[in-house]
Amino acid sequence: MADHEARAQVDAPADGIPTIRWEEPPEGPVLVLLDQTRLPAEEAEYVCTDPPSLVEAIRTLVVRGAPVLGIAGAYGVALAAARGFDVDEAAEALAAARPTAVNLARGVRRAQGAYHRALAGAASVAASTGPDAEDSAGTADQVALAAAVAALAAARALHREDAQASDRMAAHGLALLGELLPGGGHRLLTHCNTGALVSGGRGTAFALARAAHDRGQLRRLWVDETRPLLQGARLTAWEAARAGMAYTLLTDNAAGSLFSAGEVDAVLVGADRIAADGSVANKVGTYPLAVLARYHHVPFLVVAPVTTIDPDTPDGASIEVEQRAAHEVTEVTSPSAGGAGGPGGGMSVAPLGTQAYNPAFDVTPPELVTAIVTEEGVVSPVTAEALSELCGRS
Amino acid sequence: MADHEARAQVDAPADGIPTIRWEEPPEGPVLVLLDQTRLPAEEAEYVCTDPPSLVEAIRTLVVRGAPVLGIAGAYGVALAAARGFDVDEAAEALAAARPTAVNLARGVRRAQGAYHRALAGAASVAASTGPDAEDSAGTADQVALAAAVAALAAARALHREDAQASDRMAAHGLALLGELLPGGGHRLLTHCNTGALVSGGRGTAFALARAAHDRGQLRRLWVDETRPLLQGARLTAWEAARAGMAYTLLTDNAAGSLFSAGEVDAVLVGADRIAADGSVANKVGTYPLAVLARYHHVPFLVVAPVTTIDPDTPDGASIEVEQRAAHEVTEVTSPSAGGAGGPGGGMSVAPLGTQAYNPAFDVTPPELVTAIVTEEGVVSPVTAEALSELCGRS
Repeated sequence: MADHEARAQVDAPADGIPTIRWEEPPEGPVLVLLDQTRLPAEEAEYVCTDPPSLVEAIRTLVVRGAPVLGIAGAYGVALAAARGFDVDEAAEALAAARPTAVNLARGVRRAQGAYHRALAGAASVAASTGPDAEDSAGTADQVALAAAVAALAAARALHREDAQASDRMAAHGLALLGELLPGGGHRLLTHCNTGALVSGGRGTAFALARAAHDRGQLRRLWVDETRPLLQGARLTAWEAARAGMAYTLLTDNAAGSLFSAGEVDAVLVGADRIAADGSVANKVGTYPLAVLARYHHVPFLVVAPVTTIDPDTPDGASIEVEQRAAHEVTEVTSPSAGGAGGPGGGMSVAPLGTQAYNPAFDVTPPELVTAIVTEEGVVSPVTAEALSELCGRS
Repeated sequence: MADHEARAQVDAPADGIPTIRWEEPPEGPVLVLLDQTRLPAEEAEYVCTDPPSLVEAIRTLVVRGAPVLGIAGAYGVALAAARGFDVDEAAEALAAARPTAVNLARGVRRAQGAYHRALAGAASVAASTGPDAEDSAGTADQVALAAAVAALAAARALHREDAQASDRMAAHGLALLGELLPGGGHRLLTHCNTGALVSGGRGTAFALARAAHDRGQLRRLWVDETRPLLQGARLTAWEAARAGMAYTLLTDNAAGSLFSAGEVDAVLVGADRIAADGSVANKVGTYPLAVLARYHHVPFLVVAPVTTIDPDTPDGASIEVEQRAAHEVTEVTSPSAGGAGGPGGGMSVAPLGTQAYNPAFDVTPPELVTAIVTEEGVVSPVTAEALSELCGRS
């Protein structure tokens, strides 16, 4: 029971949003995901009883967002171990489910490593107690059980650490907002989805807006719809509504009018990758906001965990920008199809054969970023030296 | 026959796009519109046989865009006269079909004025030849016919003048592009729809891009999709495809990446209204492009007829920005429903009850506008004095 309670605490969903949770019903352990392709139309659960169903969930964007993909991958290894699947085979399939998601592979490897270390340790203990024909089957079961427990513990640790990182980013960000915008009553503009749906905790940029809301310091959250996949309209608006925040949705191109009217006090965005020089790769549409913020002298804050900083990418020019399929622009898909609809699966809004320019993200140079807020502290002004110092500290 | 040929020339659709045309089949005259709510899915004709059907077409956005609404209104008066409707009653209904469209009322009044002048002139001629019981019915018919012909002539004159203004704007703009960007090979970015669908000719900003294409000077037309109503994706892409132009569609928020990559040589937009100080009200999303263009030292050109300049609006702050319904942002409507779908008529992409900020247009200050290109010449730099001088000239 104590163990159950402890687990319940670790798995307690941030803000009641059950993005991902491990459950152990009598039929055996399962990983339960909130099906993000169905939001905001409905809050449906997607239950994974085996690794292949999780691979499918990752591929079809039932679960998405860098940090939570890492957690999902780690739980997937734990699920494979607990359910008696070949753990290494499952780990390979999971890590490859979305090849560009670095966090996914990292989470998978962490649980896989814990599993193998436990296996080796338990096996050496079993060997030292001597072989016995009748006991050996029971011992093998115990070894497998110990390894499965270790994999699950690794997944839970990753989940917990991610939640804690969210809280620390929010705390650092809140202190910074207090300095930049004394008096509260913030009107914050955000882009894409960076909340509990992509995190083991409350997320990155959204977690900061949420923390401001909790302290009565949020006057309004402006939510960019975030074309083409509309993560702002579908997911951020849903999270803001659940949290009871005062929020307003806008088309991405209406942000200029808000700046012009003096209705934006700060911009908060997440990051997909931060180069060593402080260049920030994030969802397409981030860079125009940074330019507008600079033109209107509004602080532009990037909120991201330290793991987002990539010392091996020297600068913005070194970041390869992924070009995505034209149909994401030439068609609009319904929420129940998520962003994963294939060509022809959505409602066409352009002439047949229209070519589209569809970069997944853009790159904001460090000189347009007021501050980078991490769980280890704030970097401002953003320089290669300050980032390097921060990475060395953590 | 000569008259028929002359009419055919006047009505010849620009680039084969039959936005609006007058026809006289044996059953009686009709006004034929290209149904813009069905584009790009299908090219359907909408035939108006009486003024009420044209009022309905204007209300439901079958025909839209300031200049072409004026032409439609004038033809509507001609249709009322030719079909024996009460011309003044029809004129009132037409002018009120979309109350904020100044051009619509202006076109209606022009044809209505021509109708009444012809009526008065013909009646005075008939009176001077003396009354005769048997002839008087025939004379009344002749008077009505003469007035109907005059109304139609006024509509055709407006149609022709608008087409000529398009050509002159394009010519002035082309000369300017040649000065700003010697060597051709232009990569031009445009927003919303400003082509033959909104004009008696080839339009405004699009007409300039089209002229560059005709001279082999257009390397690429970048087409902003233009949320929320997607006029870029639906209409500009369709016009560009028909014209055989090299075009690429993008989400509005991806323009920043294009600027960043040095892929935009100039921005071309139209205008809904230009204040006396040169502030430009245009489709929402124009202002962020102007800020990006300035940040990247790219020319930002506004192409609009002189009638767009409003001396009674002193500056940008005096322009009232229309806030439109939230459902345009929270729902996406299919092309067959056009932009006119009511709440609940589209596909919902945000949580129920989501509040939206949905300004119809934004205001770009004159200091961000490189030049205003009109049919009377180019204003650059944009100052109140230069605009006033231009208006005085025309």
